[in-house]
Amino acid sequence: MRSLKTAVIQQQCSHDINANHRKSAEFIRDVASAGTELILLQELHSTVYFCQTKNPDNFKLAETIPGRTTEYFSRLAKKHHVILVISLFEKQMDGLYYNTAVVLEKDGSIAGKYRKMHIPDDPGYHEKYYFAHGDLGFQPIQTSIGKLGLLICWDQWFPEAARLTALGGAEILLYPTAIGWDKRETEKTQQKELNAWQTIQRSHAIANHLPVMVANRIGFEPDPSHETSGIHFWGNSFICGAQGEMLAHTDDKTEGYLIAEFDMEKTKQLRHIWPFFRDRRIDQY
Amino acid sequence: MRSLKTAVIQQQCSHDINANHRKSAEFIRDVASAGTELILLQELHSTVYFCQTKNPDNFKLAETIPGRTTEYFSRLAKKHHVILVISLFEKQMDGLYYNTAVVLEKDGSIAGKYRKMHIPDDPGYHEKYYFAHGDLGFQPIQTSIGKLGLLICWDQWFPEAARLTALGGAEILLYPTAIGWDKRETEKTQQKELNAWQTIQRSHAIANHLPVMVANRIGFEPDPSHETSGIHFWGNSFICGAQGEMLAHTDDKTEGYLIAEFDMEKTKQLRHIWPFFRDRRIDQY
Repeated sequence: MRSLKTAVIQQQCSHDINANHRKSAEFIRDVASAGTELILLQELHSTVYFCQTKNPDNFKLAETIPGRTTEYFSRLAKKHHVILVISLFEKQMDGLYYNTAVVLEKDGSIAGKYRKMHIPDDPGYHEKYYFAHGDLGFQPIQTSIGKLGLLICWDQWFPEAARLTALGGAEILLYPTAIGWDKRETEKTQQKELNAWQTIQRSHAIANHLPVMVANRIGFEPDPSHETSGIHFWGNSFICGAQGEMLAHTDDKTEGYLIAEFDMEKTKQLRHIWPFFRDRRIDQY
Repeated sequence: MRSLKTAVIQQQCSHDINANHRKSAEFIRDVASAGTELILLQELHSTVYFCQTKNPDNFKLAETIPGRTTEYFSRLAKKHHVILVISLFEKQMDGLYYNTAVVLEKDGSIAGKYRKMHIPDDPGYHEKYYFAHGDLGFQPIQTSIGKLGLLICWDQWFPEAARLTALGGAEILLYPTAIGWDKRETEKTQQKELNAWQTIQRSHAIANHLPVMVANRIGFEPDPSHETSGIHFWGNSFICGAQGEMLAHTDDKTEGYLIAEFDMEKTKQLRHIWPFFRDRRIDQY
């Protein structure tokens, strides 16, 4: 057994970037002291979810890599000797921006980054306005604890993304996300959406025999354009094992973190018993 | 709303083909009289699951299309004016056999067939010995009630199969299956396997916004080779809606059928709200 203890952080964000960072830092301190080696933060955790509206002023929230956010969290990764997976609004140059997740090593160095490949564009989620489509492909990132398969939010609805990341050698799939309810929908519709979101991500674990970590935002954020009634981010972050079994999960109200430990040898065992990869019809896909 | 009432049949099979057919016929009569238009039978429902052992004598169970089983069920389809999806061991010629599902129209004609594309080969499931890999691709079958996306058992673990069938225009996904427990495994392991099986198939509904119908065999069948301790087929057939929500499901003990009705317009509505197909990165797959 090769055991790995991991954590997911779920928080509400405000317009105060420093306050958002400090809150993350406190949770990181707590889970690091509990012995976790890998910590995942939610999508765009430095800011509010600014994509609810199309506003050119929001491009000033973008930052370079390395830059303010990577430097802040690099110091924490080094201080606590943990791997941090963070998420930010990346500026490559004026006019070219990405929705990017970055892996910081235990020594504070940047291990690699992933640029969101599937970009949504719906009422309340105007991401195609802000982000170019990811150009780095589905490449897991090598770290001192194994290869991490990063995917971001909307990517979670695409089994292709999980599969290609697994084929690249990922040992864990990680999804920083920001998804929530439109409270004008019925309770039943809201519950169906949450169940679908949980089920599709658990299915990526099952299809690829990989543990899955999901960090989602919580709290209400109004829509500055008043186009929608704002988003109630539904939290419900979770960690599941390589057969999609729930190891830890939370609700839509609790700010904080989840901790789960998994056996990194489990993937190999399952792949020998359930040899899905052997039987893919690559001649037909 | 364009409503469709459907049924799934789950039964135990014996070595008596006539008895297996008669049992299916009784269930078909019952669900047809309840007003269903589309009825799905489980994988290889004419026989025991003969793939537990490699025995050349079993090739005599194979049959042509049209042949004994299609003729039997064609008469029932016409008699009850229903669409039947049946499953059989297809003989193309001596030495070339497939695991095939056939769609029979309300007038008893053959609407089309699907040959299992992903063939398992594990202790207790020696399918690569009996079946050539399907050569017809992932092509849904046009019927008087819409396009049916047939997939068979092991296909259920491959999101690629569901996706390609959906891209071909399928309006429903149907899985005849034969899967069960090795009772030497712990209860916990058995439950994890069942949950994974249910979750992965519900995820195909979610990823593609299609209802999913699953018919699984029940009952214990010994392994004639004594290589394994035999298979306890776990039943648990179900029908879920286009967001993966359970509409009807059963357990591992009850022989019989499930009935569920769904709105065939739901797929279009969901695809406009959650436009996954628009955002696939076909340049990167």
